[in-house]
Amino acid sequence: MDKYNLLDCTLRDGGYINKWAYSDEAIIDIIRNLIDAGLDFLEVGYINPEGNVGNSTQFNSIERIEEYLPKDRKNCIFLAMADVQQFSIKSLTQHTGRSIEGIRIVFYKYQVKEALELAKAVKAMGYRLFMQPMVTIDYSIDEYAKLVQNIDKLNPDAVSIVDSFGYMLKEDFRRYFRVLDNLLGEEVIIGFHSHNNMNLAFITAQDILEYKTSRRLIIDSSLYGIGRGAGNLNTELIANYYNMTLGNKYNIKLILDLIGRHIMPIYKQRAWGYSPYLFITGLYHYHPNYAGYLLEEHSEVTVSQFLEFLKTIPEEMKTKCRKQYVLEKWNEFLGEKHI
Amino acid sequence: MDKYNLLDCTLRDGGYINKWAYSDEAIIDIIRNLIDAGLDFLEVGYINPEGNVGNSTQFNSIERIEEYLPKDRKNCIFLAMADVQQFSIKSLTQHTGRSIEGIRIVFYKYQVKEALELAKAVKAMGYRLFMQPMVTIDYSIDEYAKLVQNIDKLNPDAVSIVDSFGYMLKEDFRRYFRVLDNLLGEEVIIGFHSHNNMNLAFITAQDILEYKTSRRLIIDSSLYGIGRGAGNLNTELIANYYNMTLGNKYNIKLILDLIGRHIMPIYKQRAWGYSPYLFITGLYHYHPNYAGYLLEEHSEVTVSQFLEFLKTIPEEMKTKCRKQYVLEKWNEFLGEKHI
Repeated sequence: MDKYNLLDCTLRDGGYINKWAYSDEAIIDIIRNLIDAGLDFLEVGYINPEGNVGNSTQFNSIERIEEYLPKDRKNCIFLAMADVQQFSIKSLTQHTGRSIEGIRIVFYKYQVKEALELAKAVKAMGYRLFMQPMVTIDYSIDEYAKLVQNIDKLNPDAVSIVDSFGYMLKEDFRRYFRVLDNLLGEEVIIGFHSHNNMNLAFITAQDILEYKTSRRLIIDSSLYGIGRGAGNLNTELIANYYNMTLGNKYNIKLILDLIGRHIMPIYKQRAWGYSPYLFITGLYHYHPNYAGYLLEEHSEVTVSQFLEFLKTIPEEMKTKCRKQYVLEKWNEFLGEKHI
Repeated sequence: MDKYNLLDCTLRDGGYINKWAYSDEAIIDIIRNLIDAGLDFLEVGYINPEGNVGNSTQFNSIERIEEYLPKDRKNCIFLAMADVQQFSIKSLTQHTGRSIEGIRIVFYKYQVKEALELAKAVKAMGYRLFMQPMVTIDYSIDEYAKLVQNIDKLNPDAVSIVDSFGYMLKEDFRRYFRVLDNLLGEEVIIGFHSHNNMNLAFITAQDILEYKTSRRLIIDSSLYGIGRGAGNLNTELIANYYNMTLGNKYNIKLILDLIGRHIMPIYKQRAWGYSPYLFITGLYHYHPNYAGYLLEEHSEVTVSQFLEFLKTIPEEMKTKCRKQYVLEKWNEFLGEKHI
């Protein structure tokens, strides 16, 4: 198996842009062509008991995913994400080999206990276990070491460093990587999930391809970077960079054709990508939705106003972000300014 | 003097977006605030005898630039660009110390002779000499070595590696850097000018900050990356990365306020930034305007059509790109498809 692996998460993390409303045809076409393009892992969506039946990558059961997977999977491994907030152990069904191979468990720092319990159940049901602790940089190195030791006891298949808000420098990734590399069993894969709010995702990815380790590594990406805030690492960029520096492996033409067929139409409805507003959220460690939610309703907000506005958000709310709260705080901000 | 220097080229290279129609107020405000933000070099526009008088950074004389420069320049050094195609020696006037300090000469590979002649005159008139050979990667390493030796004889202040079309990997920059570092006098600065068509500019810049050399280095950037194709390296990104890794030097708040006041209004009129179409021009080494010109008139062109279309452009026309030619070839392409 190759040391460096790409995982495309278009259908899962890209869903934040189109509310996971991929048509059945699109899901099947994207999966088929990403297999043929040589992708190593595909994350096909969320498993969510409250999810949908058809034309959605919020799948209401693991079995439903079967319908979208082709018989010939080549070497591609299929995963779906379970969010501890919305997925509970009682919805977990036995691994059959006909649907996904593994489950990625995603959780915040305050959800570690629930995540570890779900992880045990995932293993017991025969799935490969992928652990995705969000906002990794929120853990001190000591806290992270403790978490990693607890995860390692469960014989996970992979643990990822997750830069949820897009402000981790390559130097930060290296720091957390050393903890994982020291503490995880030698067969455990290390993954990387990044965002582009400060245009750092591709830099991190290129740096990872120079890491000295005997482990397998997985880099997450999505087509044209579709995803929240400024989006994810772009599959076309990292796949092409891999081809240019490590030898031809991925079919860039198939990737570009998919972008043209399925992603550009979404982009034209609702664009993502780097902007100074998102840079500011990264710079001061705010959830990128502070920019997204505010500009959706108030596109007239200037860069300088946005800088001033963020200062009015209390520290404990910086990484929590609901739309109503953002708009309320904006009205408060305007009120104070105008008095 | 600091080893690593930032040069902002918003007023010069950003002008491709707004036809250099910066208002006099904007020019003065941008210059004033970039000085205060700590920028090391500013390229304020083109000197072009066919240029304008007022509200433009196509300055029709060197003397005219004086009007925009403040008395207190702090440590900032002012440059303007002379394109061998539009600027001739007879328009050159003596350095007085009241206008720009240096002239950047920009030229294609087929213009080396004229560039070297202009360079001699620039030195003779008392200016600092900055040499900017476009599409550096078009020179073989041997050709490049010869060029560099010829430039070195003129006692230049700086020579830049120029990734005009945005497809040089960091590995490519390192290769050309070694030639410069070996062949240039030890006082000569080495510069870097990159574009974002494959989202590589920031990666290159971060890599440069790790080069082992005793020379001074200059990295070009522009506010919000304003520039042709996917744009330039972003000043806010590289200035902030410098601050985070090498110590606090640049005032990011002033840079962001400038973006809000002067660059966002231009962006809202005509956006730049990464797109799959520009990625494709980079991938196959075409001028990015093949995407720009075509999509301006035919926004409906799909990614797959664009890929097919580019194959119809003869090799010798890949880096030459006039709008009329692009549109003619597109109509030809459509015709052939429909017959």
